[in-house]
Amino acid sequence: MSNSKPEHPYRVVVEQVRPDVNWGRHPAKRTVGERVTVEADIIADGHDTLAAVLRVRHTAPGARPGPWQESPMTLVNNDLWTGGFLVEAMGRYEYVVAAWVDRFASWRHELEKKYAAGQDVASELLEGAHIVARTAEALAPPASKRRRGTDAGAADAAGGRTWLADRAAALAADAPQPDRVGLALDDELASRMARHAPRGPVSTSEPVRAIEVDRERARTGAWYEMFPRSATRDPSRGATLREAADDLPRIAAMGFDVVYLPPVHPIGTSFRKGPNNTLSANPDDPGSPWAIGSAEGGHDAVHPELGTIDDFLFFQARAHELGLEVALDIAFQCSPDHPYVSSNPEWFRHRPDGTIKYAENPPKKYQDIYPLDFETDAWPALWDELKRVVLFWVERGVRLLRVDNPHTKPFAFWKWLIAEVRREYPDTVFLSEAFTRPKVMKHLAKIGFQQSYSYFTWRTGKAELTEYFTELYRTDVVEYLRPNLFANTPDILHEYLQRGGRPAFEVRLVLAATLGANYGIYSGFELAENRPVRPGSEEYLDSEKYQIRVRDWHDPVSIAPLITQVNAIRHEHPALQHDRFLEFHDTDNGQLLAYSKSAPDGTGHLLMVVNLDVVNMQHGTVAVPIDRWNLPAAGYWAEDLLSGERYFWQGDRNYVRLDPGFRAAHILRLFPATE
Amino acid sequence: MSNSKPEHPYRVVVEQVRPDVNWGRHPAKRTVGERVTVEADIIADGHDTLAAVLRVRHTAPGARPGPWQESPMTLVNNDLWTGGFLVEAMGRYEYVVAAWVDRFASWRHELEKKYAAGQDVASELLEGAHIVARTAEALAPPASKRRRGTDAGAADAAGGRTWLADRAAALAADAPQPDRVGLALDDELASRMARHAPRGPVSTSEPVRAIEVDRERARTGAWYEMFPRSATRDPSRGATLREAADDLPRIAAMGFDVVYLPPVHPIGTSFRKGPNNTLSANPDDPGSPWAIGSAEGGHDAVHPELGTIDDFLFFQARAHELGLEVALDIAFQCSPDHPYVSSNPEWFRHRPDGTIKYAENPPKKYQDIYPLDFETDAWPALWDELKRVVLFWVERGVRLLRVDNPHTKPFAFWKWLIAEVRREYPDTVFLSEAFTRPKVMKHLAKIGFQQSYSYFTWRTGKAELTEYFTELYRTDVVEYLRPNLFANTPDILHEYLQRGGRPAFEVRLVLAATLGANYGIYSGFELAENRPVRPGSEEYLDSEKYQIRVRDWHDPVSIAPLITQVNAIRHEHPALQHDRFLEFHDTDNGQLLAYSKSAPDGTGHLLMVVNLDVVNMQHGTVAVPIDRWNLPAAGYWAEDLLSGERYFWQGDRNYVRLDPGFRAAHILRLFPATE
Repeated sequence: MSNSKPEHPYRVVVEQVRPDVNWGRHPAKRTVGERVTVEADIIADGHDTLAAVLRVRHTAPGARPGPWQESPMTLVNNDLWTGGFLVEAMGRYEYVVAAWVDRFASWRHELEKKYAAGQDVASELLEGAHIVARTAEALAPPASKRRRGTDAGAADAAGGRTWLADRAAALAADAPQPDRVGLALDDELASRMARHAPRGPVSTSEPVRAIEVDRERARTGAWYEMFPRSATRDPSRGATLREAADDLPRIAAMGFDVVYLPPVHPIGTSFRKGPNNTLSANPDDPGSPWAIGSAEGGHDAVHPELGTIDDFLFFQARAHELGLEVALDIAFQCSPDHPYVSSNPEWFRHRPDGTIKYAENPPKKYQDIYPLDFETDAWPALWDELKRVVLFWVERGVRLLRVDNPHTKPFAFWKWLIAEVRREYPDTVFLSEAFTRPKVMKHLAKIGFQQSYSYFTWRTGKAELTEYFTELYRTDVVEYLRPNLFANTPDILHEYLQRGGRPAFEVRLVLAATLGANYGIYSGFELAENRPVRPGSEEYLDSEKYQIRVRDWHDPVSIAPLITQVNAIRHEHPALQHDRFLEFHDTDNGQLLAYSKSAPDGTGHLLMVVNLDVVNMQHGTVAVPIDRWNLPAAGYWAEDLLSGERYFWQGDRNYVRLDPGFRAAHILRLFPATE
Repeated sequence: MSNSKPEHPYRVVVEQVRPDVNWGRHPAKRTVGERVTVEADIIADGHDTLAAVLRVRHTAPGARPGPWQESPMTLVNNDLWTGGFLVEAMGRYEYVVAAWVDRFASWRHELEKKYAAGQDVASELLEGAHIVARTAEALAPPASKRRRGTDAGAADAAGGRTWLADRAAALAADAPQPDRVGLALDDELASRMARHAPRGPVSTSEPVRAIEVDRERARTGAWYEMFPRSATRDPSRGATLREAADDLPRIAAMGFDVVYLPPVHPIGTSFRKGPNNTLSANPDDPGSPWAIGSAEGGHDAVHPELGTIDDFLFFQARAHELGLEVALDIAFQCSPDHPYVSSNPEWFRHRPDGTIKYAENPPKKYQDIYPLDFETDAWPALWDELKRVVLFWVERGVRLLRVDNPHTKPFAFWKWLIAEVRREYPDTVFLSEAFTRPKVMKHLAKIGFQQSYSYFTWRTGKAELTEYFTELYRTDVVEYLRPNLFANTPDILHEYLQRGGRPAFEVRLVLAATLGANYGIYSGFELAENRPVRPGSEEYLDSEKYQIRVRDWHDPVSIAPLITQVNAIRHEHPALQHDRFLEFHDTDNGQLLAYSKSAPDGTGHLLMVVNLDVVNMQHGTVAVPIDRWNLPAAGYWAEDLLSGERYFWQGDRNYVRLDPGFRAAHILRLFPATE
């Protein structure tokens, strides 16, 4: 409780260091090239002048920590200090804020005030001379020290010592006060003292905070999900990966950055699901790619119907040629036919009668799936095998992994696995497919996932969109969770899309692509496919999960042109490649959602106005922060990057009108009419 | 960064434990008899049922920690769990939240769902039998263990063992499933399993959080500040403490709980200040009590003009008879005549010419004050001496200490001093007189001060009062900072009082006494004294700090009757003795401030409506949360505890009208018309 000996009389307190995730327990996230702004509250008793520095060190993946580097922090106001650093490489950056009482600056400040008030400062000048002289002495490195220090350092010290000693003498000399005050207050002395003066007791922030730095793709990218087997003309025979590669140019042409494939592994036959998730499959039904494993192999094999590992590598190579990166699905579950079932039955849960337990969500049963038992006594072997599986694909060039249902496996497993893989392959990005309780989704992000699925799919109204993205981007959540906004998935066809038809797909596309630096669609979205398996269900009719779907990409209903346009705008405008600079803007219409994004340097604003009503034309006025954006009230241009039209706007509120089907949204670039 | 061995496969995570001050770095505050509600976010992978307990232990001042006690926590919703404990004694309570996967409850839950769905549960019953049997085995204490355990514990274990073993057998028997399901789901089994089942891996909250428990006076009290020397009929001769005791009945009659005295020590003569802070004092000017120390003694002496230590003890004894507690001023600074100056010159700062530095706030000089140098090389001796001074008064019965300018002394000093004093005298309450930057004021509270002065004196408008008290009472600040709302002090006569006259004093009195569980006034307030030394100054004309003020307490202007009434209401209504249950209520008039306070049990609401306009009558409607307060919309009484009048109110908005001078505010008790 209390110690009977007084503590060391520290005077400075460093608090509320930001960024911070759970008091330093987890790292914050950034990508290479980003600048990290660090803030801290720094206080002390009395009225002395304080000094503070930011100490940063970088640890490259798998390497030893580099040296600590110091940079000055500056006082903003009200005891808030700020500093920053650039993260130039992947790995981990650690940072600490250090602060102390700056004796010389405090003295200088007092001298200034007293002299300005016309007071006699003879005594103060002697004090100053004393402070400077002591600093000079401290610079005299004893032989032992000098040997350790570099010659340059020693020379610099020696030079500094002489200069300061002379200045100390000058301050104490009996020259006229005005002259000596001039010498006392000049900047050269201030900067030399800042560099050389002993700091006395230094207070540092506890604990050390960290930033985990990823490559840029972790921060921004447009994802396209496709079932390669459907890239065929013949519904009775699925395409191989080599054949599916022919579909890549179409995807690349739409401007996507990532093509994401469901599991490509052999599919079990026991209890295989038929079309529309029926329990009785015909021999020729392809089955669900998530029922992984058969006599033909498990998680490190390629389904014969998709070809061979070479076909996969061909597909991946073709994608890279087209500027596309391939993301694979990691689903740690097994079909009853998976090799593990016979080779390692101890990795599964068993019933009293010895049979292996299939997946259940009582009263629902999933007899085609055997969950792995992460708590088996043999967990170390199981975990190592799963790590081997991930490394198998990573070593073959896959660096984007979409993880299926991570929330049904222990946090400790993911924390370990992700750290293990990234120590050797730091460019690996794990996307968490956790559609579960908010705190669980957030924790998965904290412990290592670079990206996370979100509730975006279910946020369709103005109020809920505003509230949700304010929480994601304008609170500390933005420090550790990067949402990847999927407009649809093979499991989620939202009612908004089912009812709204093509205009709804346009709205959701624009929202996903402009609200999220990372976003994605699942193929069929561009064709506005919106028929549910049954009313009230979010499952697709004739879901591609259980059967092959051959599509006519040339169907005139396609919104591919809009997608292509939006992806081009995303590539051209840094504002859309970052999430933390989102701002919502007032409109006087409950169906008109207005928001802007800006580049990290605070410029390049884009103003989005979206009509959430997919049936009726909506119009109203939108607020524009012309002062902060340096726009002349007298007039400026609003250029719609989608239509190419230019509107002449004035003042801080302007009129917009949007017609479903004809024009879902504005993506506006605002600039002075003089440009 | 990452460890190559998997961590232990923990599954449960405990986060966001509240109350919390800086991640457990500082204790939260409560007073004896309060119930502490603890909240935590508890999550795990998958869908298992979790269990959580709150572990609490008490450490009496200066004693060893007591044993940890466990109590269950309950799930509120969305992974938020809650529990609580009563703090029954002073000292420190530590608490930890522990959670784990409840195997039996998870199994029971699944069984329920499957059985309800009409599924065959034979296998599930065998699993349950196994879980119960294992628990029975775990209860069999090996001889070695039994020796350590108590006989009672052993007996209980044995009994439990048998009961559980029988039940396990019954679950596995081949009786009809319905009967066995009945045995599986019955509550007796559930509660025995909750008590005896092995918990498996338990996750606990880190770090251990703490609550510092004070006596009730730290939480609530009405303070009255007075200069004892002014309790005289003869301005040329100040009263002694013995004479000043005659003024105590008047103060007690107003219903105050504390009488607070400025420093009672000998006052220096060098550079003594004259009336109105003039630099030239006449020999018979009494000087400022804060210029402490003369040939007659220092901080442990009583000013001869105030009498002797016995006179102080007489004054204190008389106060106690009247139900008043005495608070003393601790001002760690010295006059040039203080004994320390000659006995321990090393405790002060010196100029190059060897003279001691007086206090300065450039360009201002305070030649009558020598600050102590808390950073002197001799600081351990200085700190110990100051501790001796505090203990000198504490040992003479003073348990309330108002600390002058703590923000000009090191945080480390206060943290140490307060802990030291309270280890032996835990009923000591330190009030921080820090009118400085917000973060500094807050940190002083975090490191140990039981009460703090606040900005209340400068918050006079509706918006600023609402914002400020929302910050103080509705954020985590309420966990560690207890404001003591002084309506005036010898240093602060706010412009609102200067201009508003008597009605302004009524308004500020009601605000201070009903917004603050702790509040105070400085004598003269009841007489609406409001003349500043000069326009724009907050200093009093003829300030009592520099001269004796003889007052006519019978002046008809006195608002003593209102003060008496308000203090009586404070004593009668627990709602006004707590700060954390404050709520502001909407009014449709910018001059009408409405707020309520409630008792910890959520009852005993009082609704305050204050007219901040001291010139004009204001009227409007105020919102009443009739549903939460269980008031019938059809009609209820609003009884004004000040005027005794009853208004018949209906619905959730009602009319109020307040006239400055005639009626400054309502303090309303609302109750159904049927009562």
